Formats: sequence, structure tokens, C-alpha cells
Amino acid sequence: MNKFFTLRDGYGTVQALLPDNVSQRFSLDGLAFESILRVRGTVQRRPEGQANKAVPTGEIEIHVSELEVLNQAKKRLPINVKDHNRAKENLRLEHRYIDLRNRDLQHNLRLRSQVIMKMRECMINDYGFVEVETPTLFRRTPGGAQEFVVPSRKAGHFYSLVQSPQQFKQMLMVGAIDRYFQIARCYRDESTRPDRQPEFTQLDIEMSFTDREKVIELIEQVLRKSWPYRDNPISGSFPRMTLADAMERFGSDKPDTRFGYELQNLSAAIGTQITVPAGVRQQDFRTYGIVIRAAEARKLPTGLKKTLEEIAKKSNFCKFTQSKITPDWTTGPIARLLGQEAAEALSAQLSLQTDDLLLLGWGKQSYVQNMMGRIRLAAYDALEERELVPKRQSHAHNFLWVVDFPMFSENEETGQIESTHHPFTAPHPDDAAALTGFSSLENIYTIRSQAYDLVWNGVEIGGGSIRIHNSQLQRMVLQDVLRIEHAHLHHLLDALDSGAPPHGGFAIGLDRYVALLCNAASIREVIAFPKSLDGKDPLSKAPVPISEEEKRIYHIQVVE
Amino acid sequence: MNKFFTLRDGYGTVQALLPDNVSQRFSLDGLAFESILRVRGTVQRRPEGQANKAVPTGEIEIHVSELEVLNQAKKRLPINVKDHNRAKENLRLEHRYIDLRNRDLQHNLRLRSQVIMKMRECMINDYGFVEVETPTLFRRTPGGAQEFVVPSRKAGHFYSLVQSPQQFKQMLMVGAIDRYFQIARCYRDESTRPDRQPEFTQLDIEMSFTDREKVIELIEQVLRKSWPYRDNPISGSFPRMTLADAMERFGSDKPDTRFGYELQNLSAAIGTQITVPAGVRQQDFRTYGIVIRAAEARKLPTGLKKTLEEIAKKSNFCKFTQSKITPDWTTGPIARLLGQEAAEALSAQLSLQTDDLLLLGWGKQSYVQNMMGRIRLAAYDALEERELVPKRQSHAHNFLWVVDFPMFSENEETGQIESTHHPFTAPHPDDAAALTGFSSLENIYTIRSQAYDLVWNGVEIGGGSIRIHNSQLQRMVLQDVLRIEHAHLHHLLDALDSGAPPHGGFAIGLDRYVALLCNAASIREVIAFPKSLDGKDPLSKAPVPISEEEKRIYHIQVVE
Repeated sequence: MNKFFTLRDGYGTVQALLPDNVSQRFSLDGLAFESILRVRGTVQRRPEGQANKAVPTGEIEIHVSELEVLNQAKKRLPINVKDHNRAKENLRLEHRYIDLRNRDLQHNLRLRSQVIMKMRECMINDYGFVEVETPTLFRRTPGGAQEFVVPSRKAGHFYSLVQSPQQFKQMLMVGAIDRYFQIARCYRDESTRPDRQPEFTQLDIEMSFTDREKVIELIEQVLRKSWPYRDNPISGSFPRMTLADAMERFGSDKPDTRFGYELQNLSAAIGTQITVPAGVRQQDFRTYGIVIRAAEARKLPTGLKKTLEEIAKKSNFCKFTQSKITPDWTTGPIARLLGQEAAEALSAQLSLQTDDLLLLGWGKQSYVQNMMGRIRLAAYDALEERELVPKRQSHAHNFLWVVDFPMFSENEETGQIESTHHPFTAPHPDDAAALTGFSSLENIYTIRSQAYDLVWNGVEIGGGSIRIHNSQLQRMVLQDVLRIEHAHLHHLLDALDSGAPPHGGFAIGLDRYVALLCNAASIREVIAFPKSLDGKDPLSKAPVPISEEEKRIYHIQVVE
Repeated sequence: MNKFFTLRDGYGTVQALLPDNVSQRFSLDGLAFESILRVRGTVQRRPEGQANKAVPTGEIEIHVSELEVLNQAKKRLPINVKDHNRAKENLRLEHRYIDLRNRDLQHNLRLRSQVIMKMRECMINDYGFVEVETPTLFRRTPGGAQEFVVPSRKAGHFYSLVQSPQQFKQMLMVGAIDRYFQIARCYRDESTRPDRQPEFTQLDIEMSFTDREKVIELIEQVLRKSWPYRDNPISGSFPRMTLADAMERFGSDKPDTRFGYELQNLSAAIGTQITVPAGVRQQDFRTYGIVIRAAEARKLPTGLKKTLEEIAKKSNFCKFTQSKITPDWTTGPIARLLGQEAAEALSAQLSLQTDDLLLLGWGKQSYVQNMMGRIRLAAYDALEERELVPKRQSHAHNFLWVVDFPMFSENEETGQIESTHHPFTAPHPDDAAALTGFSSLENIYTIRSQAYDLVWNGVEIGGGSIRIHNSQLQRMVLQDVLRIEHAHLHHLLDALDSGAPPHGGFAIGLDRYVALLCNAASIREVIAFPKSLDGKDPLSKAPVPISEEEKRIYHIQVVE
């Protein structure tokens, strides 16, 4: 009797037919699934009516004449290649070498390689960039993320694993490698943050004698050239938006511009008719609304109300209410909140109709903007779930440059001043005088930098800036504004003193960008051997205890 | 009065002329060398007789109309860009951002980027390989080099920095990424070995369903395609030599085949007429000679004799003598050593003539081969120095595959058995039965592996092998032969049990290969920011002490 089996490799599957006379010579009895076979045979069209249109090779089969078992798999492997999406992630990571055979992971890793190669072709072949490998064993960068330390053979002396090649790329500019890039491995010990890996990859770029326009132009071209979907190419340049506009219209520093439902600033209409939450100064007080029209509002899932309330509950310095517009609403609860006059002004500004849903937030400007930004996303999720609005396309071309960030921000937890991007970011030309003339921290938060972020479909995929090339200004920013101990940075400051051209650059987070390109649920789906969420390696079980001999070599002892 | 100055960037220099009327507006007085200028002007042919043919831009100059100082350098920089080769290396590394401006380093880094890009184009575009980034934070690989450890937030638990992606690439083969490569960062804590860096780069390759021939063919093509000297292209395939032949003819596992002066095996001629050194068994005893003919021997530098004696002095289990052939030599000291009969047989075999120089070594086979290999190189150095022989060309195409290595060797220091390449190397097909039938260590050293090294002009630039894909054989090699604790390798053994195709690969040490391509004195000349010989970073001073807070995070204490 003819027997059938399926052959699979990294490129796909094909059906094999073992004719009766052959199966007598080459028995597959007792052979475990996932064993490695070599077959010789003839590709033939499947008999009439037996084609399987769902599979690319569904119209053919291989009639086997010779068969060799190259390596047997053991019975009952811990995960099933087909059931990739059903197995627990930790089990899949533990047996990654099996899980990698899954079609999705094959696709993701192959696409990742292709996209990065196209980026290289653009950078090197079209633009004359030089790819330079910079060290990862370095000295601690003050003021950034927690860095892994690496003990050396010199007692008490440690390297730090770089969190980015920032300092090296600036020193390369000083060293006349005027167009640098690198697909750079970076390290951050931030195991508590979701969707982060202790080691990750960025496309890291720096140019000399440049400005924001030139960097933006380059990055757009790199993305256009490396875009993997040929039937849906990116064309034209990407829109820009100031951070102020992004917050005002979308309540986010990474606006998803694939849909509207923008925030409406109702501050003027409402005036002083609403109680300012505690701790908010009058000049910082704002009110924003989002309206969902009756046709959609009537069909919204009931759970949305609670979701929005939970978002509001987590937001400091602001208040939120959601209210269905009734014919008599200007005398209802909202009117009681705002007073009738303000309620009518609001109604006029928003053209409110019966059964519209009004989402209203008020409070401290940046906080209420952020809250309403999250409200907007949650509301759209619900609208999309009920198919009341067009579904956001994952490969929509909504790239957006967000520009004119403040140079410094206040850390919300510590109240300390810190760089919005990093301490090497140059001031906006229009605000440079304000910075150099800086005498107190009073107006420091209004100084804008020359930083720019790239957002795609509501996700930040990269960021960059023009850097400070003047050593005095850099010293001043470190010492007088940020009060960062700059002994750790003496080499960079020396470099700026040694003839440093104006320079600037960019970095794209490749894991995240490729994950978005692949529609992957997490960056772990585009990394061959990712760590789990807690930074552990389920495959090798690393980290593990080391020997006493190793502790001796590195002059360390473990303290529980 | 017209003033002249030189503008320099990463691509070269050009002469600028500041006309009298312009220099009144833009003074360069007091401006330090290496400051950053922007000039606008007209490119003009230099006046008759003022061209400088030694410089690519020597026939032109720029007549400056506008000039702007973009950034001043400080006076008296610690190193002079032109004097690259005269400054102490540590000073150059400390101010690498200045040193990088030197023409040689610019050339090296730019060539490195180009060569590696061409390798990628060949691997990805021509051969369909997938570039996969594998982790560097991993678990200790037993039996290899000392690995750096990285403490984690879990007390007493450490990552190790990978010494190569070997395990990951084998797991990728199991995972159906059947053509993998990576320009991989690797780490080894071997600061005591010269011309090593704690982090280094290799072109790392692995293929499934392959054999030695296919790997060799691929590597040759990658090198041909990425070869940077277009007027001197590499053509054809590279010769092969067994390790046994390489040792017999060149006394080296990385023979420099750019010149002859091969070792002559005189064992038969000499027979038992010479005293076997202590500790050498008769069956291991060999005698080799190298002859330098009278015409060259007469002109050799006198220092050579001593150099050769010193090489001999460092060689265990063997003896060496060097002797000028005199008309009556068969009755002289050598004849006394060998007996007249053997001396005459020797003379006949080597066609010795008066004034020839005979270099004669005898002792334990591999030791005397190695000694004579070193003698051969030292003798050729001397011949070359006196211009008695053709100078070895650094870009000569003497690539050579060395094959048929023994699978296991005895560590010369510890006497322990170890893998000649690494524990994952498969046996030679002809010797596989001997390995699987292995019962005692008696004949284990005669078993050959499927490893292969690539040698270029006498330097090993890469190595690889076909791997063991059978988990039982791999377990046996680890457990019964090498006695390596394989708990650290459970994931790899599990992978081999899960359906592992036959596979093999290769790795090229890119730092060394590019250094040879650039005629660089050391690999540090082709690395942007190298560590110094002791593994320290002269630029940032890393490694440095870390804070108590960081020690607390990683649960470590320093022990002096």
C-alpha cells in the first residue's frame, strides 16, 4: 500500500508518497516525527481532485524511490512545531531549536536578515557610510540606564557593557569617520520593563557637518529602500509634528495617526467653570474632550466604560467623566459640573447631538493630555472590536517625525532635572542663547532641543538629535544643569576639545521595528534566542552559579 | 599677502589659499591646528611649477572667498596626526579620536567596512544565507577559553560572555535555519596572549546537509568576491594539504607556501646512526634538514647563527646543528656525529656542495618538525633581509586548506587529552568506526576529524569542521573521551535529539584577516577603539571601580 508523509524544511513542506514496492525496502515504521530524512524521487502532479490549494506545494507530490534516515528524533518532543501558538512561551523558549522550525519564526528571522541587508546596501552602497564596530566592554556612562558590569582580573575593576555606542560614534566624528553606522548590540539591565531584552540591536548612525534635515532625509530613504513589501511601497517624505502639537492633538509623544478622534481643547469654552484639581496651577489647567458620535456610541461594548475609568484612575492631577448626551443634558450632571453656560459653549464647539458619547478630561496640561491620549486609544480599540471603524492596518505608512522636544524634563518620580533625550543633545538654534545665558533653573524646561523621534503607527521606532560639539557648552550642561559627575566622560570632553565637527545622528530600535514589520506579538518573535521576561535564558538556564576558581580570577565574592 | 593652509577630512587633504583681501575679513591668527573650518571658494589649478605630484590633489588649490570657524581645537594636542607612526601606541590609543584622522587608520576602517559588506553580499544575495544575531549573554561553555562573567540581579548567578556562537549556530541548524551566518562579536579573557583583544569579530558560518567540499567551495567564493584588490583578483580554487604533509614539508600547521626551502626528511639516510634524544621513542624519531646553497649562504648575516640556536634551545625533545659544508666535511664534525656512511648518504640525498649551509634537526617527530618549521622561517627572514631571495608579497594568493587534523591531541602542558579543534567536531568518515568502537585511549590520537583550517601566507585566518549531529556520539565524546562535565551542554544535546540535520561550518577571524589585507602591524590598526595589550582601555581607563550601589545590585563584594 502506498504511504504518505510530509517533508518539511525552513522553506516549506511537500507531500511525499512512498510506493508499496519502495516502502518494503525503506520502512518508516517506528520512526519519530521530526526525524531527518533524505529522499530521492520524482516530482509529480497529484492525482485529479487531490490537490490542496491551501499549500504552495499542494498540487504536487514526490514519488520516493530512495530514502535514508540521516538522524532520528526522539519520540514525543516537548513541543509540536505546528502548535507554536498554543504552547506556553517559556516551553517554546526552552526548546527554541524546535520552535524555530515554525513557519512564523522562519519568516520573521529571514525577513529580519533581508531588511537589515537592504539598510546596509542603502547606507554603504548609496550613501558611502562606513560600518564601524565599536567596543561593548567599556566604562560606565553616567546618567543612563542600569548597565551590566563585567569584573576584570584587576581586583575591584569592572567594565560596563555599553547601553549604546553614543560616545564612540561621537568620537568617530571627531576622528573624521564622517559617515558612520553600525548594527549595534546594546545592553541594558532593565529586566522589569515589559518587552525589553537585556541585549538588543539598533541601527546606529552618526554624520558630521549635518543638520536635522539631512538626518531626516537619510533615515526616510533607508526606510523606503529597506521596506520589504514591494506591492505597497513607501513613497514621499514623512510628515512632521512638534511635540506640543502631538500632545495637544493626540495626547501622546508617539501619536497613532492612522485614525482621528483627536483631542478637542475645550479650555476656552469651559473657562473657569470647573473645579481645578488639587496641586494644579491655573496656568497649567486644561480641559480636553473626545466625542464618539451616536451611530457608533450606541454599539460600543459595555466594558469600555470601566476600561476608561481605570485609565482615569491611574492618572494624577486630572479628572475624567464620560457622559451620554441626552436631549436635556445641559441641565444634567455635566451641566451641574460645568454650569449651563459652559455646557452650551461646549455643545456648540463639539456640535453635540443626542446619544453622542462625550469623554471629558481636565487637569494639569501634560497629565490630562496623556490621559486623554490613552482614552483615545482605548476607545478606538473598542470601536475597532465592534467593527464600527476601519481596522488599523499594521503596515499603514503612518510614519511621523516628532520634533522640538524640550531639552530637559523633570523626572516624575524624583523631581530631578534630566535630559529628555540624553545629555549630548544640542539646543534648538532659536533657544541656544537662552541655554548659554542660563542662570537659574526657572525657565530651563522651555528650552527646546534638536532632538527628533520617529514614530510609526503609534510606536516610537527611533530617535536622534544634533549633538553638542562645543566642549564648553557640553561641560556646562553636564555640570551646571544636570549635575552629572563627568569624570566618567573626560574622553568625550577631550575629544570635543580636539577639533570636533558639528554632528548628529539617529538610532532605530531594530527588534521593535522588525517585530512591527512582521506583525509579531512581541520582540521575542523576531529574535532567534531571546531571554524571557525576567532576563533569564530558558534554553541554557543562564544565569547560573560560577565556580570558586572563577570568583578567584575576578576577585569577587557573592553576598546573599 | 596671500596665506596658505591645508584642509583635511577623512578622504584626504587639499591646499587652500586665503587671498589678501579675504584674510583681512577672516583671520586665522591664533587658530589652533586641527580646528574645524568651513570654507567656500573656487577650485583652481595651481600656478605653473607649483603642483605637487606626490599628493592626489597636488595640482589644484582652493581660492577661499568665505571662511567660518565651526569649532576651535585646543592648542598643542597630545599627538600629531601626521606622526601617527612615531607616537607611542598607548598615547595614540588614549587619544584615539585624534589618531583616527591618520590616513592609514582611515584607510583601514574604510577597507574593513567594504570587505565585510562584500562578504555579506556574497552570503546573502548570491547564496541565500540568513544573517542571525545570537546572544552574547549566555552560559559558560565548558572546555574552552576563559570567559568573562556578568553578574545578574539574582545573587550568585552569572551570565558568561560567549567565546563564539558555536552552540547557537548548531541549534539554528536544528531549527531549520539551514544557511546561517553572522559577523559575530566574541569574547575571550586571554589578556596575556599577544595580538589578542578581549572582544573580537568573526565571520561565523554554518550550513545544513553539507560536507567539507561544500563549505570549502563557499568560503573560497566569499574570499574571492570580497577581495579588495581588483587589479590582482584571486582566481581558481585553493590548494589542499593534509596536516601530516604540512608538518612534514613545512614544519607547521600553517605553512607559508610563498617560498620553498622545504624540510627534507633524512631519517632513512641517517637511520640509527645518530643518538636519539632522551625521552624519545625510536618509532617517533625523525631527522630533517634544510639546505641553503653556497651562493646565498656566503652572504647571510652573521646574526642568523645565534637566532637559529635560540630557536633550537627552546625546542624540547630535539637537537639541532648548523654546519657549513667544507670539501672534507664527511670527515668533519657532522661526520663524527652521523658516521661517515650516513654523512655520505645525506650528502647524496641533498646534493651537498662546498659552502652550502646545512641546517639539521633530529628528535621527536612533531617537535623536530615544529623546530625546523621555525628554523625555516627565520632563515628565510635572513635571506630576504639580504635580498638573496624574492621578497614575500603580503597580498600573494597563497591560500591553503590544511585538512585531516587529528580529532584529539595531548595538551603539552597538562598531558590531558583535548579536542584539537572543539568537542563538536565530527570524525573523518574513514575513522568513524574506530571512534565509535573506542575502548581505550591507546589509539585515540590517530583518529582524524573533519576539521579544516584556512591558511593565508603562513597565517591561520579561519577554521571549521563538519559537526557531530548524532547525540549518542556527542555524549560519548564529551563523557568517555574528553571527560567534560556536560550539564552545561544539556540544551545542545537535547537539540541533537530533536531532529538534527548533518551540518558543518566555518569561522574567519576578521580582525586578523583585515589586518593582513591592510598590511597592518597589528590587529589594533584595524579596530576603531582597541584595548591595549593588557586588556585595558587607554581611552576611557576602563575597567574602573564601581559604586557600592552597583555591587549591591549584583550581590558581589570585591576580594583583594
